[in-house]
Amino acid sequence: MEDPKKAKAIVILAIDPGTRFCGYAIAAQTGNHTGVCAHGCLIFKAQKPLPERLLEFHDAIETLIKEWHIDKIAIETPFLGKNAQNFLKLGYLRGIIYLLAQRHRVFIEEFTPRSVKQQIAGFGGASKEQVACMVHTLLPRLGPQVLREDETDALAIALCCLWKNRIQSAL
Amino acid sequence: MEDPKKAKAIVILAIDPGTRFCGYAIAAQTGNHTGVCAHGCLIFKAQKPLPERLLEFHDAIETLIKEWHIDKIAIETPFLGKNAQNFLKLGYLRGIIYLLAQRHRVFIEEFTPRSVKQQIAGFGGASKEQVACMVHTLLPRLGPQVLREDETDALAIALCCLWKNRIQSAL
Repeated sequence: MEDPKKAKAIVILAIDPGTRFCGYAIAAQTGNHTGVCAHGCLIFKAQKPLPERLLEFHDAIETLIKEWHIDKIAIETPFLGKNAQNFLKLGYLRGIIYLLAQRHRVFIEEFTPRSVKQQIAGFGGASKEQVACMVHTLLPRLGPQVLREDETDALAIALCCLWKNRIQSAL
Repeated sequence: MEDPKKAKAIVILAIDPGTRFCGYAIAAQTGNHTGVCAHGCLIFKAQKPLPERLLEFHDAIETLIKEWHIDKIAIETPFLGKNAQNFLKLGYLRGIIYLLAQRHRVFIEEFTPRSVKQQIAGFGGASKEQVACMVHTLLPRLGPQVLREDETDALAIALCCLWKNRIQSAL
């Protein structure tokens, strides 16, 4: 059996996309060791036209993929809420994510919002605040800093992806 | 007044986007002269995963923009039909169009499907067949060749964009 210490790291980029705020988290798994390497929130100015923000989103995500040698992108599956225009904008961002994943040969892993809440907070109907609270409990190194919900959502997705990977690699 | 003969050509790329078939038409206006330069239909194999088709779509549209020195992209405004997944896929493609437009400094002009039908076929509730029939009447040089509806739709959008430009430049 391969020594887990010598196993190549799997680097995950979790994204909670938005045309104003986009949370992201980078997590890695090397053998049995897992951890969050970086996290943040991209901010796109509301005054800028949508195409300009989409290009900024594309370039920022591409930079993260290249700099961190991303193997896997984790995102939530979209659902049509009350606002069809928001759903369409989410489509714009997801189209760019798919494009980048294909160009850089990165695998995409999708999680339903319900399953993320279930795994992080214990039940599928958890609020964003409850998810954020649990993310801080699960990742004590985050410290007392207040993060945007977009960022804690991305961290939650990253944790789900890490756990799924660990289960798969343990099988 | 500037001599229209010396006026720079405005080159339009009209797109009817789809993840299986994508119609396009290239039209140009130089002074009072207008015409369709090229048209076609991009075909993406159904067996290929969506990210692969999106990258092919991106590369094909980027090639058209560069080769024809496109100034303006004309597309229809999207509307949420019965199938939310199709609406989302349209979002993927539109996100890529916006991205390319921003990267290559191309202006985007949008037309509602109703206004395209109104202008081409005379009424907003016209069928795709009626639009196709009128496109052949308006562009007799197309000859008797049978075109896919995606292609005639793109030609119809290109004509609407040309007419709008002519009206604007005549003012």
